[in-house]
Amino acid sequence: MAKGRDILGDKENIIAIIGDGSLSGGEAMEGLNVAGSEINSNLIIIVNDNQQSISETHGGIYKNLELLRNTNGKALNNMFTAIGLDYAYLGNGNDIEALIEFFKKYKDIDHPIVLHINTKKGKGYKLAEDNKEAWHWCSPFDRETGKPLYSFSGESYVDIAKKHLLNRAKEDKSVVVVTPNMPAALGLSEKDRINLGNQFVDCGIAEEQACAMASGIAKRGAHPVVVTNATFMQRTYDQVSHDICINNTPVTFLLNFCNFDGLTDVTHLGIFAISMFSNIPNLVIMAPSSKNELLDMMDYAIFKSNHPTMILLPGDKPIERETSLDVSNINKFEVTHSGNDVAIIALGDFYSKGLDLYNALKDKLNINPTLINPRFASGIDEKLLDSLLNNHKLVITLEDGIIEGGFGNKIANYYSDKNIIVKSYGLEKEFYDRYNAKELLKELKMDTDSILNYVKETIGGK
Amino acid sequence: MAKGRDILGDKENIIAIIGDGSLSGGEAMEGLNVAGSEINSNLIIIVNDNQQSISETHGGIYKNLELLRNTNGKALNNMFTAIGLDYAYLGNGNDIEALIEFFKKYKDIDHPIVLHINTKKGKGYKLAEDNKEAWHWCSPFDRETGKPLYSFSGESYVDIAKKHLLNRAKEDKSVVVVTPNMPAALGLSEKDRINLGNQFVDCGIAEEQACAMASGIAKRGAHPVVVTNATFMQRTYDQVSHDICINNTPVTFLLNFCNFDGLTDVTHLGIFAISMFSNIPNLVIMAPSSKNELLDMMDYAIFKSNHPTMILLPGDKPIERETSLDVSNINKFEVTHSGNDVAIIALGDFYSKGLDLYNALKDKLNINPTLINPRFASGIDEKLLDSLLNNHKLVITLEDGIIEGGFGNKIANYYSDKNIIVKSYGLEKEFYDRYNAKELLKELKMDTDSILNYVKETIGGK
Repeated sequence: MAKGRDILGDKENIIAIIGDGSLSGGEAMEGLNVAGSEINSNLIIIVNDNQQSISETHGGIYKNLELLRNTNGKALNNMFTAIGLDYAYLGNGNDIEALIEFFKKYKDIDHPIVLHINTKKGKGYKLAEDNKEAWHWCSPFDRETGKPLYSFSGESYVDIAKKHLLNRAKEDKSVVVVTPNMPAALGLSEKDRINLGNQFVDCGIAEEQACAMASGIAKRGAHPVVVTNATFMQRTYDQVSHDICINNTPVTFLLNFCNFDGLTDVTHLGIFAISMFSNIPNLVIMAPSSKNELLDMMDYAIFKSNHPTMILLPGDKPIERETSLDVSNINKFEVTHSGNDVAIIALGDFYSKGLDLYNALKDKLNINPTLINPRFASGIDEKLLDSLLNNHKLVITLEDGIIEGGFGNKIANYYSDKNIIVKSYGLEKEFYDRYNAKELLKELKMDTDSILNYVKETIGGK
Repeated sequence: MAKGRDILGDKENIIAIIGDGSLSGGEAMEGLNVAGSEINSNLIIIVNDNQQSISETHGGIYKNLELLRNTNGKALNNMFTAIGLDYAYLGNGNDIEALIEFFKKYKDIDHPIVLHINTKKGKGYKLAEDNKEAWHWCSPFDRETGKPLYSFSGESYVDIAKKHLLNRAKEDKSVVVVTPNMPAALGLSEKDRINLGNQFVDCGIAEEQACAMASGIAKRGAHPVVVTNATFMQRTYDQVSHDICINNTPVTFLLNFCNFDGLTDVTHLGIFAISMFSNIPNLVIMAPSSKNELLDMMDYAIFKSNHPTMILLPGDKPIERETSLDVSNINKFEVTHSGNDVAIIALGDFYSKGLDLYNALKDKLNINPTLINPRFASGIDEKLLDSLLNNHKLVITLEDGIIEGGFGNKIANYYSDKNIIVKSYGLEKEFYDRYNAKELLKELKMDTDSILNYVKETIGGK
């Protein structure tokens, strides 16, 4: 925006604000570097240094921030001035009056400057001051006790994955958990991290490094598991493709919040994960639909796979169901109910929606459909798809993500010159923001009743 | 790999090599940061500082490298030691004996160290010493004169785009060319850059910053045009999605080498561009198929669009053809020949292949097909697609990129529950490497003869 201002001949202050935690990301570092040489006009970069990222900070830059805090900003070795930026320090950043004085001093400055401000995270609320990580993010809570108002009971797929990963790491010391400051994605507590010891690497908020490092670990023969939320993976498309997939290094990704009813704000959507990654060569994307399947997939991905593997942790309640196929049969779909006329291919945590539809088609339209758990989001089972042509008129695909570029498109493309109707259900290519998930399903005519109507209109009941 | 070595209890030296030019990229910076605190064992990072990126270097870090060179590595303000890395400097890096001595000294070191080595780019070949940018990359050349052995005659789409962009920038001072050190992508010479003055920003090799900055420039009301090769855009998927597309800032991308017969080595492929970007909301991807269309699209994208726009520069020879539609009709396809039975939808620089097929179908199968120039790769013209259902049995899509996640998939998906055959042609989801482009087309049965055979087998001739 500073550049835009300059080119248009204007003069206002342009102010960027960043926390110390976010400074470890490549985007921030690239920005500081360019500000240090290519901007020769007003630009105020406020670094709010509260000595905390999402979990604790990790990275060499935090040594420099500490040195600068300890020397009241006077240390000669200064990562900001080293790269051409002016610099000033304020020690008591929670003092509003002091802040105002400080800002007044640098307002209208004629070159880029970093204002390094020391603050206390959670200041004024003792519970948050005492437990910074837990209070980085929280659901509605009681102010007195800090307890959440709503509790989520029962074991989740995330719990299951965490337990299994910790067990495997205990048994095999070559398993390394790598995370871009998101141990929370798997609920890995401080104690879990300490127990993992050198089998745990936190790169700070630096997804590119986490993925490049995981590729190196795998290349060197150990077993890296990258843990984070699906939404943050878009920061490292390049490393997934070039560092991992071209090298075909057997990195395992364990991704949380891939589901449309998980994080629903526009900057944390998981609904693009399949569309984004299922079209990169060599990457095997697994979408488990039951507890057993998740465990099998994790073991295969971590210890046996010759490919990089991405496991999309389901957002729904864990389902207990025996699996009939070995995970090593990549892109082999599992037929869980064999029928005719209509085939439902229901991916990952939408398998349960597929099962609902299966039951509804039986009960309400007197159709005996085929139900398929495709297991993989990155490839198709051509043999099975061919066999469906014999006794099916309609194939329905269900996936937890946008349709365009996703799994259903692969089915539609395969059948595009064959004599069968394909109807793919998924979300639109749209930046949804703070939506009601259930209502969205209805709006998109993805709820069971709407799909029943579609089937009725398209091929009729019996 | 150092982490992998440690976890497996081994001891070999792990050595990373990077040029000064690449140091400006977020991946490199994230890596240095993590090495500065999370690796407590042998890791040797060689920085080959030849004072040149692809074009000249840009960024504050180069001020520090210069200071370090000028002080023989003794300066107290050192961006490497600031972030926890050990550091050593060698001034005469083109002296092999000196290099060997230097390396011997640090071999088997027990912690991460940066070996900063000053070298001369092109050393030993005067032409390359004198013109570093031109010799960053070259085709086979005569050793005496430095002249290329093969010349490419005639104006290219890149030449046309460059000329038009420079004209527009001259007329309107709010146009800003932003590039991640790839002025070469548009053939912008040093003179062009000087003439552009403050309307040119080189971020160094830092695609994330280039895109984030372009978004800021657009938000502030000026007109940024990001210039680079398609392949490098994967480094900035995140910024395209979050910084640009969520904000819906009217950034223009002008991308070179989107074509499968351009750069054919595995780390520079442009064939993933459509698959990667056409599924991001708000982004309009334009694929011009003639000179006029390119010019119209550039003007629309730079000055009129309310959306971010990506223009895929065609790789074939420029075609002179009048356009019948206004660019502002987003996702409206152009019917260039109206016929029946077979419709050919030929995207961007594959329009010429579509025209070849059109003529062959007429001449050899006596079919009068419809030929369509879709103009847009990120959306479909549903009205037109519906109208084709009346008198067409087969729709053929042709695109210069992989099929999965691409343009043809959108057509196949739209028609998947309608009564028409769709056959999409494009490349497989595969990391092709140093292939013969013509042979690959035949192998994929995408050459005109093979497609003719497909049509004959599928719907017969007349």
